[in-house]
Amino acid sequence: MNAVTQPANSMVIPTYDDVLQAHDRIRPYVHRTPILTSEFMNELTGADLYFKCENFQKAGAFKVRGASNAVFGLDESTAEKGVATHSSGNHALSLSYAAGRRGIPCHVVMPRTAPQAKKDAVMGYGGTITECEPSTSSREAVFAEVQAETGADFVHPYNDPRVIAGQGTCSKEMVEDLGELDAVIAPIGGGGMISGTCLTLSNIAPKTEIFAAEPKNADDAYRSFKAGHIIADDAPETIADGLKVPLKELTWHFVSNHVTDILTATEEEIVDAMYLTWQRMKIVMEPSCAVPLATIIKNREVFAGKKVGVIITGGNVDLKKLPWMNKA
Amino acid sequence: MNAVTQPANSMVIPTYDDVLQAHDRIRPYVHRTPILTSEFMNELTGADLYFKCENFQKAGAFKVRGASNAVFGLDESTAEKGVATHSSGNHALSLSYAAGRRGIPCHVVMPRTAPQAKKDAVMGYGGTITECEPSTSSREAVFAEVQAETGADFVHPYNDPRVIAGQGTCSKEMVEDLGELDAVIAPIGGGGMISGTCLTLSNIAPKTEIFAAEPKNADDAYRSFKAGHIIADDAPETIADGLKVPLKELTWHFVSNHVTDILTATEEEIVDAMYLTWQRMKIVMEPSCAVPLATIIKNREVFAGKKVGVIITGGNVDLKKLPWMNKA
Repeated sequence: MNAVTQPANSMVIPTYDDVLQAHDRIRPYVHRTPILTSEFMNELTGADLYFKCENFQKAGAFKVRGASNAVFGLDESTAEKGVATHSSGNHALSLSYAAGRRGIPCHVVMPRTAPQAKKDAVMGYGGTITECEPSTSSREAVFAEVQAETGADFVHPYNDPRVIAGQGTCSKEMVEDLGELDAVIAPIGGGGMISGTCLTLSNIAPKTEIFAAEPKNADDAYRSFKAGHIIADDAPETIADGLKVPLKELTWHFVSNHVTDILTATEEEIVDAMYLTWQRMKIVMEPSCAVPLATIIKNREVFAGKKVGVIITGGNVDLKKLPWMNKA
Repeated sequence: MNAVTQPANSMVIPTYDDVLQAHDRIRPYVHRTPILTSEFMNELTGADLYFKCENFQKAGAFKVRGASNAVFGLDESTAEKGVATHSSGNHALSLSYAAGRRGIPCHVVMPRTAPQAKKDAVMGYGGTITECEPSTSSREAVFAEVQAETGADFVHPYNDPRVIAGQGTCSKEMVEDLGELDAVIAPIGGGGMISGTCLTLSNIAPKTEIFAAEPKNADDAYRSFKAGHIIADDAPETIADGLKVPLKELTWHFVSNHVTDILTATEEEIVDAMYLTWQRMKIVMEPSCAVPLATIIKNREVFAGKKVGVIITGGNVDLKKLPWMNKA
């Protein structure tokens, strides 16, 4: 799918005013997450790293920011029919959480291969799951059926201006807490967090460089960035299960206009960075969150000497299936 | 060993002034750790729980408080010969860390069965390890040899007034941050943290109840408390490897005078509470730290409706040997 094939009315680009409104709207439903530092990580990388811990966020991930902004921004009559989405995991449970807080239904299409911990969490928040195959094409087909049946409002996991404005509140908090940063880095899958980061920083900290970190095994955003147009893979294989989805026109708008560079890491580099973070920082986080640190370690020349915000995106990992269990 | 058999000059009981001095002395070398809350845990237990995260502490455990107080309180000529200790783990690496910061030698006797992660960390901080068998008797015999050879100053892991005063800074921070608490609960092994907690709270928050939590498989403190004198086991078996050591006369002084009750939990209850904390709070912590939560869950009537401080004592766990790997 490419921007030019998309109807113009779906291309509502959120503004920084939307981020400000989102922050006011979602404040009762989300945590202002702590920012951790680690001398060990600073010595390892030569940079001053500030880890924004969205793994401690409500529902265990940053996605609750965008989902809450969408759910609590609905008018009453739309809200009554509920919300629906497809998601590789965290958006699903974030939307279920937000819908539950508002007391409206939430319908979720999830790959059957998604971690059981995430499925359990969606159901725990009161969401209804319909399973699909682990490919973008199957996901979108099954979702169309669900939406037709329910009439629920579609909250796309990332290609939605309400969601992007919500995610933009994360880097707003970082700037408020830390002042100006030389760079911010976050993982990129569909590009929702990166787009929110671009939206906020391009307005309030335009000198801050924005890096996106992507698994080499699912490097469609990297290839898109280099090619100058969206390239989408149908079913990439990576341990960073939150980062398998492709860019869409709205996130492509932000990525192509505001991202400094996209850096990639191999599966082994991701697992090593994840292990190191658990071991030294004592936090539980998903493989996806380790991709930025993995790229910082391997691109020392890019980050050394800089004040860098690193977004730890979520902590919903299956503790019984940790990747180093297969490596030891 | 019993208090009456001990020479009087080893029974220097620290005062709250020692805690105040310790806090000033160690401030440059330790973190003021964050306090986390969890709606899920509050709903589960019916209590208002405040988790003091010493797993995020320097060297990964609260023990760095007492170790730093001892190391940085030494006069120059004593400090030159270094410090020595025996420890099941966290005191060893905390003392190594503190000695390293001061630039003096640190000699450590450790059970050969201690987690490799802890041995690596001791060596990483520059400590020298001599291994012993995993029993109190072997540990004390090997240590006597090491101390005779080096002339280093013995910093006992808990039966030392400098160490207890240092540990007392943890509950001082809790009271400063949270105001008066109805209760504080911490794990008990040798009783260093509990003694420091007693020392501080009996002075600045005398109405706060103090609970100690102990593995049922290593319940010598529980049996001592009920019997009214120290009972020591030589080599108890529990997953909570930091809690195998017995009370000594100084910690017995505090436990017998100030502790409200000692509660115990089975191995399965400890692992379940540990898993739940990792899963819901996204923090990496040791099995020992899960004992308080396990006892809160099983003694709902004791804690429900109360404002309770829970000390998460350390995060130095071997990530490749997690207990639920054997259970799944």
